[in-house]
Amino acid sequence: MVPAPLEQLIKQLSRLPGLGPRSAQRAALHLLTTQEALPQLQRIMLEVSNTVVTCSTCGNVSLEDPCHICTDEERDGRIICVVEQVDDLWAIERSGSYKGLYHVLGGVVNALDGIGPDDLNIRQLVERVENPDTQIEEVIFALGASVDGQTTCHLLSQRLEPTGVTITGLAKGIPVGASVDYLDDGTLAVALEGRKVFG
Amino acid sequence: MVPAPLEQLIKQLSRLPGLGPRSAQRAALHLLTTQEALPQLQRIMLEVSNTVVTCSTCGNVSLEDPCHICTDEERDGRIICVVEQVDDLWAIERSGSYKGLYHVLGGVVNALDGIGPDDLNIRQLVERVENPDTQIEEVIFALGASVDGQTTCHLLSQRLEPTGVTITGLAKGIPVGASVDYLDDGTLAVALEGRKVFG
Repeated sequence: MVPAPLEQLIKQLSRLPGLGPRSAQRAALHLLTTQEALPQLQRIMLEVSNTVVTCSTCGNVSLEDPCHICTDEERDGRIICVVEQVDDLWAIERSGSYKGLYHVLGGVVNALDGIGPDDLNIRQLVERVENPDTQIEEVIFALGASVDGQTTCHLLSQRLEPTGVTITGLAKGIPVGASVDYLDDGTLAVALEGRKVFG
Repeated sequence: MVPAPLEQLIKQLSRLPGLGPRSAQRAALHLLTTQEALPQLQRIMLEVSNTVVTCSTCGNVSLEDPCHICTDEERDGRIICVVEQVDDLWAIERSGSYKGLYHVLGGVVNALDGIGPDDLNIRQLVERVENPDTQIEEVIFALGASVDGQTTCHLLSQRLEPTGVTITGLAKGIPVGASVDYLDDGTLAVALEGRKVFG
């Protein structure tokens, strides 16, 4: 009933995060029935695969390798901020509150999904820190405050300990703008425990 | 910060129904960082645009024009079922409860979205019914039970009235498997008004 190539397209689209089988079907039909939608998407995908590369140093996506962040002379080359994915890097860049380098792990360890330490860019991070040319003084863990994220932090700190680098993590507490009565117990506990002298 | 071609890809993906700006970003990064995901999607999109066509008779998507439903000798050529989109046609085909022909309108009229009668395949439907070679006896309106869907039904019936064809609409009432206390008032009203002798 559904033409075979279209069925294939629906299947491919449904693998994208955020699209289920049903929305993949709607997306495929949208592409097919909207003037110029399919060729436009084809053109831009071709351009992306021809121009965008993954930085072999930090794992960021960029038009150059090493990427525009790794080669930026104005950034502080002594600090590396470790993130799970490139969109976490984008979020930190948007905030404008960090001027060091990055390292994209490519995920966090998760036994259920079968993601072990060797599936992440951990070895590359240790090598960057060990490399005498880089002069890294601090590594910031900016991973999610989930069980998997924290497990990965412990693993990373074990691997980095021999290098003698300073290891820090994001502060935990009440998010800016949040109201106390909506906070979960875990956040309340760390926010109370980590309380600071006011003013 | 985000490479320009990647930014473009995110923009294109966010136009797909079901993907917002944020999920489009995740989808683009997934395509870029998952082995073979981007070239695979490129290949299948190329195949779709080279092979899948819109049937010039009924608006269905197929590998042939006229489509495999229009040319199927075993189907009842005297009935046309009018649907909004191709996925509605697929849903009716999946049910296996209809063996006539189809006509895909391409939407319903909607003043807010600026979709008027001329943006839909209404003229083609009237021409199909008027054409003495087709011998259409009945047109079934299988549009959504929304305000726009019902407005479109009224418009279609006005245009089709001069042809003398029998016009029918989907029965309205309680969906199979639904419980009465969850039904909305409108559905309850039409289900009561349209009650039938039991057994």
